[in-house]
Amino acid sequence: MFKTGKELRDAIRNGRFTGPTAGQAKGYVQANLAVLPKDWAYDFLLFAQRNPKPCPLLEVGETGSPFTPILAEGADIRTDIPRYFVYEKGVKTAEKTDISGLWSEDYVYFLLGCSFSFEQALLAEGLEIRHITENRNVPMYVTNIMCRDAGRFTATPMVVSMRPFSPDHAEKAAEITRYYPAVHGSPVHMGDPAAIGIKDISTPDFGDSVTLKEGEVPVFWACGVTPQMAAAVARPPVMITHAPGHMFVGDLHDSDFRI
Amino acid sequence: MFKTGKELRDAIRNGRFTGPTAGQAKGYVQANLAVLPKDWAYDFLLFAQRNPKPCPLLEVGETGSPFTPILAEGADIRTDIPRYFVYEKGVKTAEKTDISGLWSEDYVYFLLGCSFSFEQALLAEGLEIRHITENRNVPMYVTNIMCRDAGRFTATPMVVSMRPFSPDHAEKAAEITRYYPAVHGSPVHMGDPAAIGIKDISTPDFGDSVTLKEGEVPVFWACGVTPQMAAAVARPPVMITHAPGHMFVGDLHDSDFRI
Repeated sequence: MFKTGKELRDAIRNGRFTGPTAGQAKGYVQANLAVLPKDWAYDFLLFAQRNPKPCPLLEVGETGSPFTPILAEGADIRTDIPRYFVYEKGVKTAEKTDISGLWSEDYVYFLLGCSFSFEQALLAEGLEIRHITENRNVPMYVTNIMCRDAGRFTATPMVVSMRPFSPDHAEKAAEITRYYPAVHGSPVHMGDPAAIGIKDISTPDFGDSVTLKEGEVPVFWACGVTPQMAAAVARPPVMITHAPGHMFVGDLHDSDFRI
Repeated sequence: MFKTGKELRDAIRNGRFTGPTAGQAKGYVQANLAVLPKDWAYDFLLFAQRNPKPCPLLEVGETGSPFTPILAEGADIRTDIPRYFVYEKGVKTAEKTDISGLWSEDYVYFLLGCSFSFEQALLAEGLEIRHITENRNVPMYVTNIMCRDAGRFTATPMVVSMRPFSPDHAEKAAEITRYYPAVHGSPVHMGDPAAIGIKDISTPDFGDSVTLKEGEVPVFWACGVTPQMAAAVARPPVMITHAPGHMFVGDLHDSDFRI
């Protein structure tokens, strides 16, 4: 178990760690990665500005720069993430543990907030998070809530993650996460899955199914998988992301993102 | 006195209103305007992303579009603001009440949150806002707090607005504005002006001086004049802004921007 973001990143850079980052460097912020050519960066930046709940930007690189002066001094986006997916025209064409050989002076990276950050706050307030209890990945669903279009990023449905709670804990979870707008903020929906276009709560589109107990309310938050959905529709020539669960881990703390 | 944003914008569009917007359409959101050529829009969007306190983006247009589907259905950025300033290479070259003749398919507009929005919340909680009491413009100062650079927008000092309060009201004001990250959020500094590079609190760089009473604490918020400071340093070929105090008024309410 690595204690700090820096320790973990060093191990990743040296090839000693290539696994999922959940549970590592507890309390340090974890982030989603998206890399795009400069020609597509403006549209993506605009897409994120118009859709801050699914796409909360924590840091955006200068064109061609793999460095992250805001989230982690000395980190390198090309080597410090355990696993990457490479997409060409919306199709996954490679999986890597280092993208130094692919990097271009024309690339711009985007790091987006991740719900791992608010989960710590929920646990600290005594709430049970079902997918952690059941040692599964959080269930994620494609909804009928449409994102705002931006340039070539159009017709993108919002992806949400779901956590079940008793009605009073659901209200408490909503209140706690409201203070974390940089990591998806308050829920986008509570209750009836059909109201946001989810036909069967027991078969998520991504991640794993979790137990929904009698009387519990499913609570839905905007999810950082949404940008990958946007790219699947818009089909940019290249887009590099982290592999699901294999996040960038910074030097800032989750608590730094509470307003 | 106009009651709604729409009533006010109609009067502005028809040339019946060309004055400052303070006190008009109470409770409706007011916003700062910046228009830039597309070639500069990415750098500005990035500058705003990295400096959300001085540059909280409420809406960004599609390239060439003067319409504002988010803040106000049917509004037109070219005609619905009472007064505009035109800058070329950082120098003010014209003042207009309509920019239809200047608009280009290559322009992108940015609307940024304004502290008018949180002032309503402060007044509602029983706080006195000195510059309103004294019927003056809010005092603004150039600080030694440097903004994060983004592309060609470099070496930009943050501009702040100042409101004096008793120590307990200062704390209360900080707590209230924290919930309004889209309109500058919590203060960037409270107390000693010299600590942020302000030599003489009685001579603001913009706006008017207000009375600072014995025992009062000056409270400083990031200010929407900062983008104009950034443009003065970077000198883009053209930048169009609203004239100070002559804001864009939307259909959304100030309260919509409370998280």
